[in-house]
Amino acid sequence: MKNNYKMVKNAVGRMVPDHVNGKSAVPYLGVGKFGPTGRKAAPLIATCADYPSDGNKVVADLKTALIKAGIKDGMTISTHHHFRNGDLVANKVFQAAAEIGVKDLMWFPSASFPCHSPLIELLDSGVIHHIEGSMNGPLGDYCSAGKMRGLGVLRSHGGRYQAVQDGEVHIDIAVIAAPTADAFGNANGVNGPSACGLLGFALADSQYADRVIVVTDNLIDFPCIPWQIQGNYVDFVVVMDKIGDPAKIISGTTEITKSPDRLLIAELTAEFVKQTCILKNGFSFQGGAGGTSLSFAIFLEEMMKEMGIKARFVRGGSTQYLVEMLESGLTDYILDGQTFDLEGVRSMRENPRHVNTSPFTSYNYHGKGNFASMVDVVVLGATEVDVNFNANVVTHSDGRLLHGIGGWQNCLFSKCTILPIPSFRDRIPVIVDEVTTLCGPGELIDVIVTERGIAINPLRQDLIKAVAGSSIPIRRIEDIQNEVEEICGGKPDKPRFEDEVVAVIKWVDGTIIDSVKKVKSD
Amino acid sequence: MKNNYKMVKNAVGRMVPDHVNGKSAVPYLGVGKFGPTGRKAAPLIATCADYPSDGNKVVADLKTALIKAGIKDGMTISTHHHFRNGDLVANKVFQAAAEIGVKDLMWFPSASFPCHSPLIELLDSGVIHHIEGSMNGPLGDYCSAGKMRGLGVLRSHGGRYQAVQDGEVHIDIAVIAAPTADAFGNANGVNGPSACGLLGFALADSQYADRVIVVTDNLIDFPCIPWQIQGNYVDFVVVMDKIGDPAKIISGTTEITKSPDRLLIAELTAEFVKQTCILKNGFSFQGGAGGTSLSFAIFLEEMMKEMGIKARFVRGGSTQYLVEMLESGLTDYILDGQTFDLEGVRSMRENPRHVNTSPFTSYNYHGKGNFASMVDVVVLGATEVDVNFNANVVTHSDGRLLHGIGGWQNCLFSKCTILPIPSFRDRIPVIVDEVTTLCGPGELIDVIVTERGIAINPLRQDLIKAVAGSSIPIRRIEDIQNEVEEICGGKPDKPRFEDEVVAVIKWVDGTIIDSVKKVKSD
Repeated sequence: MKNNYKMVKNAVGRMVPDHVNGKSAVPYLGVGKFGPTGRKAAPLIATCADYPSDGNKVVADLKTALIKAGIKDGMTISTHHHFRNGDLVANKVFQAAAEIGVKDLMWFPSASFPCHSPLIELLDSGVIHHIEGSMNGPLGDYCSAGKMRGLGVLRSHGGRYQAVQDGEVHIDIAVIAAPTADAFGNANGVNGPSACGLLGFALADSQYADRVIVVTDNLIDFPCIPWQIQGNYVDFVVVMDKIGDPAKIISGTTEITKSPDRLLIAELTAEFVKQTCILKNGFSFQGGAGGTSLSFAIFLEEMMKEMGIKARFVRGGSTQYLVEMLESGLTDYILDGQTFDLEGVRSMRENPRHVNTSPFTSYNYHGKGNFASMVDVVVLGATEVDVNFNANVVTHSDGRLLHGIGGWQNCLFSKCTILPIPSFRDRIPVIVDEVTTLCGPGELIDVIVTERGIAINPLRQDLIKAVAGSSIPIRRIEDIQNEVEEICGGKPDKPRFEDEVVAVIKWVDGTIIDSVKKVKSD
Repeated sequence: MKNNYKMVKNAVGRMVPDHVNGKSAVPYLGVGKFGPTGRKAAPLIATCADYPSDGNKVVADLKTALIKAGIKDGMTISTHHHFRNGDLVANKVFQAAAEIGVKDLMWFPSASFPCHSPLIELLDSGVIHHIEGSMNGPLGDYCSAGKMRGLGVLRSHGGRYQAVQDGEVHIDIAVIAAPTADAFGNANGVNGPSACGLLGFALADSQYADRVIVVTDNLIDFPCIPWQIQGNYVDFVVVMDKIGDPAKIISGTTEITKSPDRLLIAELTAEFVKQTCILKNGFSFQGGAGGTSLSFAIFLEEMMKEMGIKARFVRGGSTQYLVEMLESGLTDYILDGQTFDLEGVRSMRENPRHVNTSPFTSYNYHGKGNFASMVDVVVLGATEVDVNFNANVVTHSDGRLLHGIGGWQNCLFSKCTILPIPSFRDRIPVIVDEVTTLCGPGELIDVIVTERGIAINPLRQDLIKAVAGSSIPIRRIEDIQNEVEEICGGKPDKPRFEDEVVAVIKWVDGTIIDSVKKVKSD
């Protein structure tokens, strides 16, 4: 199946397969150029006559639930990643599937993490055929080495919702790890000993999968309030000792950076936002949980206090820093897609102004608008950017696929997208002639902030004008690139690939923006 | 179109048309007997590329919105009834449609009220072809007189969700009156000068309609929190001076009854619930907003205090009485489908334990279960019951169709369904040989409580045993009937109908349980 395609050139000049895992695929056409024409996926109509009238859907264990759900060879099984590297359920799902004796499953996680590396054994043994979903770490490495039988398919959070909604991916069985649930299947992530915040990544799964299994370690009496997942979509409920370790929901670091360079980058970014007048009363921003991003938020917070202004909303991934802003009245709301620390979890549980969102509300490109394009400014990371402002977020400089996309692509639709990045890492320049993997088209990336100055995308003459004459160190991106290449001793080595495609990167509309090739092992 | 059908006998022996408004229809097969086989309705896939990236969907006025939504002859236009008799939007929608010059629209309200009687003129003039939805008062009378061109179709709240979800009714344009909204279309009913509580009756409309228009008199900055209606489903937002009068959301009376007979009925009902041990710690109940029902809740409340127990949840229609129970700790939660007074609105706004529900969570029979069957006891009204415990809730003793179904049919799935009713009204017996219109099959109706004693459905031997030897006045339903007929001077006159069918009553699964015929005029 893996080689049953021909390569075609897409609108950003990348060669991509015209078929992916046996289904035809549309090459990327440009931002907003692909017009969907069909109808949404239509789940089977259920009837209450087939469900217990007392609402008790609890079955003995996960294996029983999978059998009752009709698990069989070749099915697609989904899980969510709100526990990130602390998830204890996905491995158990596929171990149970192995015990049942099914083969060739497609795993469709909202993302996978190093904790899922035991599944490599089940990929090798044939229980799992391939993974469609972001692969952070060992599973990405496995894919990069060409060991997976199918193509990896990386989608953004919004792209995953879009794919399920549009019927590109049909989930046969969804397994939803839930920190609290009732026997009817109502579930949430804010309560219980394993509280991880919310369950938005599993929303599409609950709505569109044929069968939905909720797995919890905190079964309470009906009704489970709030019901972030609605029991009316759920078939079976399974009780387990421990579904996850919420201490491991932390994304990367949730500490403010101590690196002087990164602090400088964060400060320059905040200064830029101030100078361009994006920073004003009622504005909105989204940052991540990395050290630079957190430091940016701290600088911003100081400026907001000085200016006497507040934000209308900030977007999470939430951390203690965003929670402090909310609690001190510096923002009306946190609109949160995932909690990155336990303060985020607590705040979402206690504070009605800390609002749980989903990939449907925030990121789905095939909706009637979404929240991402309403955000005034977003700061995002990247592994590489090129002189045309294209950016890479999934592959390392050695070509290995080690990172997921998350909401990154979706966030590019913000009114101002800034990538605050160091100009080199481990003496390897980050600004390149051409990114290894093109995840985000340059036309959507407005500003690159490095410790050596700020490059503004020439498409954004408004921003260029706004900082003209200010103390902000604006430079051409090529100038920063040249300076860094001198320091690092030239351009970085190109990663060395085989011809074989091992994964594709979907754009937010389901088209293919780039492919990832097998890394040469030598 | 109206006469293009033949009559067939259904599982309760009622003659019903095999086609309704040009579509084939399934006669009622019995409780839980109709097995749906298809897939849910599949709405068109949208794309953010077609919506303003700043999220601003506000257009000049309702007429503009309808034109942009592509209104044309024969379309189906929906509205909700959370304002009940205080709605100011539906009339304006069809006045605008008349100005635009379209004809033959199908109006698909979640219910209509006397305030909508100006639409009779538009039914006469051809702008509106017919109404599918409960018709309280003048519009029902108009239908009963055979003046509507199409058949009236009455569905329960759950049945309406089911019909939209299953694609039986395709909504072309949904118009959602929203007491608070942002320019993106996020909307709620709890805030703003016209706060009416919630917007659950419009949920299906938002999810499945081709075009969705939110109309508000309180436009606020994004984000409108909570978003009971999600802007991601919304096409256009219209601002209007005043969308409704929340003082008129009151259903019937929200005063405790002063009638000694009705007080007795309420007390007997509460006694029955206590005697059968339904009343225990962690139980649940649902009542309505009528005087008897409210008095029942008060009696129950006293008993709960005496017994030192609390409910896990009570279902609303909420009133000040349920709110008092919540605030005094007699119930953990109110699970509310509509607020029947302004105290209900306030409580839902302020108290996270006063939870807004929708016909999807509570009543949709074509889901993976719903809340209705988990309720321990429900008390409901009826215009007539017969000796087989079948009940009528839509037509009067004179045969006129004057009432909607509401959630009545859905609630029959409670673990114990009680109809506390006076044995006669205006000297007309309420217990009859055969109900005029069969809305609920006797097998789901467990207990009839009258001021002359309580009749238990012989199918519920468990309940009969539970009260054996108690002071509860249990009688055969025929004995109560006979006694009342003696008082009233015989059996009630049968209503006099023409042969022409003017409306049908859907069961919760979309099959037809009965038809309503044109009332003889003479």
